[in-house]
Amino acid sequence: MKKSVDPRSAGDEEVERTTAPGEPPRRQRILQAAERLFLHYGPAKTTIADIARASGIGVGTVYLEFGSKEQLVEQLASEKSRIVADRMRAAATKAGPSAQNRLRAALVARIVALLDFKNEGLHGCDLARCMSSKTDFELGEEPRAVLREIVRDGAAAGQLDASDPEEVIGTIELAFGCLSPPFLYRFERQVAEEKAARLAMVVVGGLNSRAGRPTRG
Amino acid sequence: MKKSVDPRSAGDEEVERTTAPGEPPRRQRILQAAERLFLHYGPAKTTIADIARASGIGVGTVYLEFGSKEQLVEQLASEKSRIVADRMRAAATKAGPSAQNRLRAALVARIVALLDFKNEGLHGCDLARCMSSKTDFELGEEPRAVLREIVRDGAAAGQLDASDPEEVIGTIELAFGCLSPPFLYRFERQVAEEKAARLAMVVVGGLNSRAGRPTRG
Repeated sequence: MKKSVDPRSAGDEEVERTTAPGEPPRRQRILQAAERLFLHYGPAKTTIADIARASGIGVGTVYLEFGSKEQLVEQLASEKSRIVADRMRAAATKAGPSAQNRLRAALVARIVALLDFKNEGLHGCDLARCMSSKTDFELGEEPRAVLREIVRDGAAAGQLDASDPEEVIGTIELAFGCLSPPFLYRFERQVAEEKAARLAMVVVGGLNSRAGRPTRG
Repeated sequence: MKKSVDPRSAGDEEVERTTAPGEPPRRQRILQAAERLFLHYGPAKTTIADIARASGIGVGTVYLEFGSKEQLVEQLASEKSRIVADRMRAAATKAGPSAQNRLRAALVARIVALLDFKNEGLHGCDLARCMSSKTDFELGEEPRAVLREIVRDGAAAGQLDASDPEEVIGTIELAFGCLSPPFLYRFERQVAEEKAARLAMVVVGGLNSRAGRPTRG
């Protein structure tokens, strides 16, 4: 499925397109082309020369903007991470004042966002930080910050039993490890969402503070 | 690290050792040799000829007892699974009458048993059913039966909120997926045990029935 253009034949390396008025700035154009190619062919099979050709920008200039392909991947992964965090925050806001509901909604929103990435392209997963086996179970800094805020606020309000919010987040991360890329992508979408909802219910239920627990009649 | 004996040179294939009095029966001898070799070299690099040689039993006879290497692996994996289940049951018994405590103890005992397998040999993991990516997150039938009993008894006693015990077990399985081979073996032993204890606390806490929840004051 490698595209037919041989990157080595890119003779127009330093022949740069002039930026027309209203066209996105150079850096943005490079990122857009890189994302398109990464999603389709995967970062491993995409070269800087491919990206230069697709964005109409010289190879040398691409290197001036981004030191390496890894930096491009990193920046796009950060953007994905920010999208996940935004969707978690939006879901939490929509869930109302209960910390349990906010946490559950944020956790499920994360799964749904990751499932959406998979739909963007075969290699969507690669950009959702599942390239390195080291980071399989990590939420990423921005999604983690959203959880931190919900857990801290919930604990402060006496709704969650979380004397050590970072430990709680670590446990949630571990519990949801199997609902992270690439494992997550084994499941059919509906199955994955159902599993996420159940897991969130049980995990978040386990954090209910005694003060917040309804007592029987 | 392949052992130096070339399995193809096993000229004594059909020359069977006579079983001395008190020696384990033939089937048992084959299993013991197979386990030793699997643990050391891994099932993939161990042949039936290797097992025949190590057990002093002809290749043809090994095939009579076990149709294939896969059947040998399967039987040994079942034994490992039974050991895990026994240790879960023992831990639950020791934990006393509270269903929450029993469930927590059984879940942690499973992790400790799997960590012990790893110490038995480089390829202990292969025999703990982590060969197939399909079964990564599965507890195995016997450990699942132990959990089923604890969850059903706990629900019947009003101590656990588990209207559908199978669903609860599926959720626990998912939550502990990252604490299953091969993922489990990334963690240092102490770290893994601590993670297991925290995860069990949160997950089992989420199953507390309202009836079982202590109320404030």
